[in-house]
Amino acid sequence: MTGPARAPEVIALAFVASDRAEAQEARARLAAIYGEAPEDDADVVVALGGDGFMLEVLHRNLATRRPIYGMNRGSVGFLMNDYGEERLTERIAAAEAALIHPISMRARDAAGVEHRALAINEVSLLRETRQTAKLRIVIDGRTRLEELICDGVLVSTPAGSTAYNLSAHGPIVPINAQVLALTPISAFRPRRWRGALLSHTARVTFEILEADKRPVSAVADNVEVRGVIRVEVVEDRDISLAMLFDAGRSLEERMLAEQFSA
Amino acid sequence: MTGPARAPEVIALAFVASDRAEAQEARARLAAIYGEAPEDDADVVVALGGDGFMLEVLHRNLATRRPIYGMNRGSVGFLMNDYGEERLTERIAAAEAALIHPISMRARDAAGVEHRALAINEVSLLRETRQTAKLRIVIDGRTRLEELICDGVLVSTPAGSTAYNLSAHGPIVPINAQVLALTPISAFRPRRWRGALLSHTARVTFEILEADKRPVSAVADNVEVRGVIRVEVVEDRDISLAMLFDAGRSLEERMLAEQFSA
Amino acid sequence: MTGPARAPEVIALAFVASDRAEAQEARARLAAIYGEAPEDDADVVVALGGDGFMLEVLHRNLATRRPIYGMNRGSVGFLMNDYGEERLTERIAAAEAALIHPISMRARDAAGVEHRALAINEVSLLRETRQTAKLRIVIDGRTRLEELICDGVLVSTPAGSTAYNLSAHGPIVPINAQVLALTPISAFRPRRWRGALLSHTARVTFEILEADKRPVSAVADNVEVRGVIRVEVVEDRDISLAMLFDAGRSLEERMLAEQFSA
Amino acid sequence: MTGPARAPEVIALAFVASDRAEAQEARARLAAIYGEAPEDDADVVVALGGDGFMLEVLHRNLATRRPIYGMNRGSVGFLMNDYGEERLTERIAAAEAALIHPISMRARDAAGVEHRALAINEVSLLRETRQTAKLRIVIDGRTRLEELICDGVLVSTPAGSTAYNLSAHGPIVPINAQVLALTPISAFRPRRWRGALLSHTARVTFEILEADKRPVSAVADNVEVRGVIRVEVVEDRDISLAMLFDAGRSLEERMLAEQFSA
Repeated sequence: MTGPARAPEVIALAFVASDRAEAQEARARLAAIYGEAPEDDADVVVALGGDGFMLEVLHRNLATRRPIYGMNRGSVGFLMNDYGEERLTERIAAAEAALIHPISMRARDAAGVEHRALAINEVSLLRETRQTAKLRIVIDGRTRLEELICDGVLVSTPAGSTAYNLSAHGPIVPINAQVLALTPISAFRPRRWRGALLSHTARVTFEILEADKRPVSAVADNVEVRGVIRVEVVEDRDISLAMLFDAGRSLEERMLAEQFSA
Repeated sequence: MTGPARAPEVIALAFVASDRAEAQEARARLAAIYGEAPEDDADVVVALGGDGFMLEVLHRNLATRRPIYGMNRGSVGFLMNDYGEERLTERIAAAEAALIHPISMRARDAAGVEHRALAINEVSLLRETRQTAKLRIVIDGRTRLEELICDGVLVSTPAGSTAYNLSAHGPIVPINAQVLALTPISAFRPRRWRGALLSHTARVTFEILEADKRPVSAVADNVEVRGVIRVEVVEDRDISLAMLFDAGRSLEERMLAEQFSA
Repeated sequence: MTGPARAPEVIALAFVASDRAEAQEARARLAAIYGEAPEDDADVVVALGGDGFMLEVLHRNLATRRPIYGMNRGSVGFLMNDYGEERLTERIAAAEAALIHPISMRARDAAGVEHRALAINEVSLLRETRQTAKLRIVIDGRTRLEELICDGVLVSTPAGSTAYNLSAHGPIVPINAQVLALTPISAFRPRRWRGALLSHTARVTFEILEADKRPVSAVADNVEVRGVIRVEVVEDRDISLAMLFDAGRSLEERMLAEQFSA
Repeated sequence: MTGPARAPEVIALAFVASDRAEAQEARARLAAIYGEAPEDDADVVVALGGDGFMLEVLHRNLATRRPIYGMNRGSVGFLMNDYGEERLTERIAAAEAALIHPISMRARDAAGVEHRALAINEVSLLRETRQTAKLRIVIDGRTRLEELICDGVLVSTPAGSTAYNLSAHGPIVPINAQVLALTPISAFRPRRWRGALLSHTARVTFEILEADKRPVSAVADNVEVRGVIRVEVVEDRDISLAMLFDAGRSLEERMLAEQFSA
């Protein structure tokens, strides 16, 4: 922590907080102690809230490579460091970065409009009405399932594998495993199909069959496109996100611990 | 088959068919051979099609106790007897009846309107938008889950347990087991909650939390009510459906065989 | 609790305890307060320990119909009432009885000897060596699976469905559901076969194939028979066990609550 | 296929076959057509049989880096190419190699003897008697589960993930995913624990608790050590196995296809 090469006291921090009173109050106190830079000029953004807010902050910094350091002031804090007001610059200087790539969604709707969005956790499709979804699944240009009848389906990153994917009965995937999880939601036919773990280089295309009668919406993290007819998902390796975790509490460690917490 | 008590040749049959050409043609041939009564006057209704059509015919005969004998002219025929044109009255006379009770749904929407429908397979709830559903589950007046965060949830009859329930990872239940299966769809919290098998006498109430922000639709077999705020499900023992199955191929036998077909 | 028909003060109680010091000490105090009858003369046996001890006491009273009232002095107390030293005769007089039937195992070994034992929870088969088990499953005289290749398989009562059966990925079954759960342990072929819920009247026979090369042991609760070649399991409706549970904390209620505790 | 650098006609082939008549006959015909080298001098070993035999041949060539080309003459041929007698040297020359690393087991028994074996599919532990196994799981020197009560547990390579691991409810893992699957067999406590996907660099240690009362055996593919007290599993990156697959039918492709075969 000493020595000329590392001078934590000169890191410019931005503090951002969710709407919760607890998070807002923390923001005010921390800004008073450490000063604050605008988010666009900061070396590190300190996000105060829960996982939902962390995802928001990550999303708006996708283009910047600016590292995000979260502290838990929310209800679910899997991605957050413990909250503390002391020695924050030292903690941040000593933190380990988890570099993750988002997946990109290209969703075409019935009007032919193409919608693009990035997802850190998952891209999911779900039927909109009582009509079950009928989907064709194409991977790297090759049809793998001619027809999946289901409530929906999702493609999850390793980082997202403990989120929606887990609830849909998909496997937890180590953060560095270089795979994507393809997980169905209530597969009707093939009966109880379990999904697949795919290479992270896979390009996954969903073609929505009988889209008029069986409308399906697509969601990239929290961006929803209704009435899609075709959705393409691929990892975007040009974008790297840096989440900072306190030493000994890395994301890899958290995901490992999560698997033993059941 | 002989003897005065049973005179199969005088059974009045109605023949009804799904839209499929194959089903329509079968209907015409059978009516020519056996004559036909109007559905309302028939002793037995012969349904020609697949399981979807069978459900339709069962629904429109819910109030009548009129037995239904299905023959398979569709793609999925779990509830259907094998198709054949010979000795049909004898087959029907020798068939065994499966008596099943539907479950009734009372769904109140945001406008306060109450919708009622009967289901032979299941009553299911599913989120309508990207917002996950939040539900309270109350059984016989006692709150059992304060808050289930999920894609949805369903209550299945034994007869329906091989349908949607199975796709949502619920168990197959013997037709005479006197239970209802309560099965979540993608349970987020409690994480990976597996659902429950309930006594068939249970009254299950779902209260939709934050219904404005998190709209949920309810479906009884194929009747959909959107924007529900409260849904109650209970077996209706006043109504008995009689499905007729060829000797040695009873519904109980079919469900047992299905469990060994994986 | 008043009135001539019910005189709790004259119930003769036997107190039995597991080896744990905590259980032994409780036994001594309760016997001093309430007096004690020999187990064979008691109206009710009070079992002090955990579920494992409860099973022991139930087993040695199988032939007697003598009701057992458990109080928790062990590590796992799903079948036990809360421990308390006051007003015990009143609690017992007000308790509700859960009547359950054991299942009987008839296991024939390679020497042709037949071993019989009763199980309250389950009868299970497991391979003894690295050689996977090969079993034929026959139900009511009809072969349902020609060959199951697996680590093992079990038949569980409803009361046992929260025990080994649940660990082997079987469903929790309501205590009054009148079914038996047939659940495989690591099914190799048919691949990932899920088992079946059977009518409680079913007679389940396992024939061990290639038993010389692939030795299998059979266990009824805690009685083990090694090197079996044929095992038959059937509910024994001639025997009824009465477990007593404090009002409002019936076994049915416990099993329901267990399903919502995940 | 042309050019001086590639001369398939001079590849020395050894032909080895399982005991099955079908495999032995194929061996004789192929040796007559293509000539045969002793296994130790061959450039490529051609294995004729099913997956079980393939594992044997891989095992006895672990130290040699000699590529193995399997052709299916057995009942299960997931690892085998289609059988054919024509243009075999050309097929082999055009084949793609799947390079996989085995995992090594070091198992210490109660007498203190250490047994070592390599596994291409999995290292598994299973209880030997009716007493459930109690295990501590340590990963990279850190205790992750203080006590797992279970029938057993296994560590699977990606190549083995479609074998025992899948039957024990573990996930299929892509061949290049750089993970190991840790999968329990009937986890009693933690109740229904699902296992974990670990980094391929993980060193997994199982300590058998109460080994006297609760004997456990360990199996590396088909080498069994009984009465173990401690088992260590780690990927052996010094050893690479080359399995040859016909172009377009690579192991990666097979594992992907397997996941879509419902």
